[in-house]
Amino acid sequence: MNVFVLNCGSSSVKFQIINTDLELFEADGDKMIAKGLIEKVGTKEAIINLQAGGGEPFKAVEPVEDHRAAIMRIKAWMEEPTTKIEGVHGWDDLHAIGHRVVHGAERFTKAVRIDKEVLAKIEECCDLAPLHNPANLKGIYACYEIFGERIPQVAVFDTAFHSTMPEDVYLYAVPYDFYSKYQVRRYGFHGTSHRYVAYRYRKLTGKKREDVKIVTLHLGNGSSACAIQAGQSVNTTMGMTPLEGLIMGTRSGDIDAAVVEYLFAKGVGSVTDIFNILNKKSGVAGVSGIGNDMRDIEKGADEGNHRAQLALKMFANRVKKYIGAYMAEMNGCDAVVFTAGIGENGARIRSMICSGLEALGIELDEELNKQTVRGKTGRITKPGSRVEVWVIPTNEELLLARDSVRVIRNVERLW
Amino acid sequence: MNVFVLNCGSSSVKFQIINTDLELFEADGDKMIAKGLIEKVGTKEAIINLQAGGGEPFKAVEPVEDHRAAIMRIKAWMEEPTTKIEGVHGWDDLHAIGHRVVHGAERFTKAVRIDKEVLAKIEECCDLAPLHNPANLKGIYACYEIFGERIPQVAVFDTAFHSTMPEDVYLYAVPYDFYSKYQVRRYGFHGTSHRYVAYRYRKLTGKKREDVKIVTLHLGNGSSACAIQAGQSVNTTMGMTPLEGLIMGTRSGDIDAAVVEYLFAKGVGSVTDIFNILNKKSGVAGVSGIGNDMRDIEKGADEGNHRAQLALKMFANRVKKYIGAYMAEMNGCDAVVFTAGIGENGARIRSMICSGLEALGIELDEELNKQTVRGKTGRITKPGSRVEVWVIPTNEELLLARDSVRVIRNVERLW
Repeated sequence: MNVFVLNCGSSSVKFQIINTDLELFEADGDKMIAKGLIEKVGTKEAIINLQAGGGEPFKAVEPVEDHRAAIMRIKAWMEEPTTKIEGVHGWDDLHAIGHRVVHGAERFTKAVRIDKEVLAKIEECCDLAPLHNPANLKGIYACYEIFGERIPQVAVFDTAFHSTMPEDVYLYAVPYDFYSKYQVRRYGFHGTSHRYVAYRYRKLTGKKREDVKIVTLHLGNGSSACAIQAGQSVNTTMGMTPLEGLIMGTRSGDIDAAVVEYLFAKGVGSVTDIFNILNKKSGVAGVSGIGNDMRDIEKGADEGNHRAQLALKMFANRVKKYIGAYMAEMNGCDAVVFTAGIGENGARIRSMICSGLEALGIELDEELNKQTVRGKTGRITKPGSRVEVWVIPTNEELLLARDSVRVIRNVERLW
Repeated sequence: MNVFVLNCGSSSVKFQIINTDLELFEADGDKMIAKGLIEKVGTKEAIINLQAGGGEPFKAVEPVEDHRAAIMRIKAWMEEPTTKIEGVHGWDDLHAIGHRVVHGAERFTKAVRIDKEVLAKIEECCDLAPLHNPANLKGIYACYEIFGERIPQVAVFDTAFHSTMPEDVYLYAVPYDFYSKYQVRRYGFHGTSHRYVAYRYRKLTGKKREDVKIVTLHLGNGSSACAIQAGQSVNTTMGMTPLEGLIMGTRSGDIDAAVVEYLFAKGVGSVTDIFNILNKKSGVAGVSGIGNDMRDIEKGADEGNHRAQLALKMFANRVKKYIGAYMAEMNGCDAVVFTAGIGENGARIRSMICSGLEALGIELDEELNKQTVRGKTGRITKPGSRVEVWVIPTNEELLLARDSVRVIRNVERLW
C-alpha cells in the first residue's frame, strides 16, 4: 500500500508517501517514496519543498490559500511527468491517508479509521488542544473534500500510546471533579515517537516486549520522557498539555504553578499573555536569551556566555531527574533511549545527562557517544554498564503509515 | 539560656521555652521547659493551651484580641504562682526570642538578630509569601512592643537552608528577567526541619558532614523532599511557593501549570479562586474527598473507598519519584530519612513509598517499619540494604532555639 502520511500544523502541511504493508513490517521493507513540506500556508508566499524518493527537490514560493490548496498543489506536482515517484503516478495510486492528530483525550486509545462520528469526536478534543487539533482537522477536512470516501483515512493520535498509564499516574492531585467534569488529567504526547523507539529497541536487542523496562527520551524542540514497561507507557512528562515536564526550546516545562499567580498579581499580563510566555518565550530560549536552537546555545556556552551554560545545565539536569524518577517508578530499567533532534545529535547534552549516573548503573562510553550522531543507531554505554544507553532515530511517519495499514487491514498492533 | 521560641500564624501563636546553650548542643542537653498554643487569636473564643514541663496543661477559652494580647496572656500565665516552669518565674528569666519566619528570599541565608534593618528586609519578603510572612511579623512586632531591645530577638528562616542550591537548580526555565526583575526562582521551605534531621542522621550514624548524601522527606500536612549533599541542600521539591512538589494535605504539588489556563478559560473562577483551590482544596483531600487527614484516608481505603486508595497511591508515587530523581541528581545516596507527622507515623505510607525500590538499593524491613512510630527513631531497612531508610522525628523548635543561641553568642553553625 502507498500511504499518504499527513501532519498538518496551523500554517503548514508536511507529508510523506510510504510504501508499506503487513508483510513488510518485520523485515523493515517499508519505503519512503516521496516527502514534502509546505510552509506559510494561507499566504501569498508559501514555501514549497517537495521531493520524490532520492531525486532533486522541487522548490517554489507561491500563493497557497489554505490546507486544501496545499494538498491540491502536492497533487499537481505528483501528476507532473517530471516527478518520478516509484509506483505513484497520480492520486489513484494512493491507498490510504494517515493523519497525525495531537489530542485524542480519553476518546481514542488507538488509531482509528476516520468517519463522521470519529470526526465529531476529534472536534470534541479541540478544547483540550486548541493550538493543535484544529490544524490537524483542517488537513482531514481538506482530504475529505478532495477524496470523499474513495481513499480510507486514518487518524493516529499522539496521546494514544499513553492511554495505558494507570489512574494514579494520570490524575493530578486536584479536586476529583476537575477530572470527571473537565477532563483535567495527564494525557502525554509524542506517543508515536516513544512507541516507535521502544519497538525499535526491542527489535535491536532481541528482547521480548514483556521483559523490557526502558526510559525513552524524545528531545527535540518539544521534549518529553516516557517510562515504558512491557511495551506500555506507564508515565510520561508532558501532562494535560505539552507545557509540563522537561525544559524545551521555548516551553518552561515543570514550574511552580503559583508563579502564574505571582506574575499575574505583578501585572505582567493577562492569563493568556503569561501562558504565551511560558509556551513561547521560556525554556532554553528564555534562560539563554540566545534562541531555541541547541547548537547556538552550545556555541554560546563555549564562548563563555553564562546564561547559555546555565540553559544547558538546566536542560540536562531536568532530564537526569526524570531518568531517576522513572527508574524509581519501574524499580530500575534496562535501558535509556535517546531520540529526536537533540537526542540523536546532541552528544554533548547526552554526556551531561548521563554523567554522574554511575550509582544508578549508567556508564557512558564517551567515544561511542560522540560517534553516534546524524541518524546513526547504537549503544553508547560501556560493555559493563548495568543500564544501557541507546541512540535510536525516531520515525513517526513510518509508524503513522504502519498504523494506517493495520487499521485498514483490520489487524491489531503486531507488537 | 532560656529561649522563647515563637511560631506565629495568621490567627495562632505557638511557642516553646527551651533551656539550651552552646555547651549543651553536643550532649543533647537542651530541655523544653514549657510549651503552648493559642488558636483563634483575634476572636472572643480563642483556644488556649499552655503547659509547663511535664505538668498539667492549662486550658481555657477566652477573648484574645491580637498577637500582642496572646503573648501577654502567656506572660500572665507564666507569672502565676501555680505555674511551675523550671528556672523561669517571669519575663526576666527569658534570654532570647527565636522567631520562625517562613520566607527570607535571597536576603537571608542564615538566622539573624532582628533590628530595624532586618525588619524592613523581612517586610520586603512579604510579597513572596503573602500568606506567611505577615503573620510571622505580627509576632515579631508584638514582641518588640512588649520587650523593646531588652531581650534579643532572632529570626530563623524556613528558606535559609536551601540557599546553597546551585543556580541551575533554583532557576526556572522562564525568561531570565523574571528572576532578575521579579525574583522568580525556587526557594524551598521546611529548611529547619530538613537541616535538623540531616544533622541528627549524621550524629546517629557517626558520619562526617562531608561524606553524606541523603534524601530527607518531611511528610506532614505540608510535605517536601530535600536532597542533601555534604550537609547542604542541593535541591528541594517546594518552589517559589509551598505549592510545588509533593502531594500534600490540601495542596496539589506538581501540576501542569496550563491546567490553570484551562480552568480559567472554563470559567471555574478568577486566578485567585483557582489558586485557592490548588492550595486549599486539592492534594489528598481533593482526590479522596475525605479530608486531609491521612489516618481518615487510610481508613477509607481499608473500607474499599476507591478515591481514598487513589489518594494514597498518588501520594506515595510522587514521593517515590523524587527519591529516584534526587538519587540521580546526587549520583546515588546513603540514606532516605522520613520525618514529620506522616513520615514519623505513617508506616503504611512509608511501606508504599519504599516498596519496589530494590533496584535502587532500598530493602525495607517491614517489621522494623511497623514498630518505628510515635516518636521513635531508627533504621527501618534490612541490614544488607545498600541505601538505608531511617525514621527521625523532627524538632524545628529545638533548632530555632539553638540558632537563636548561636546568633546571640556570635558563633557560626557548629555543624
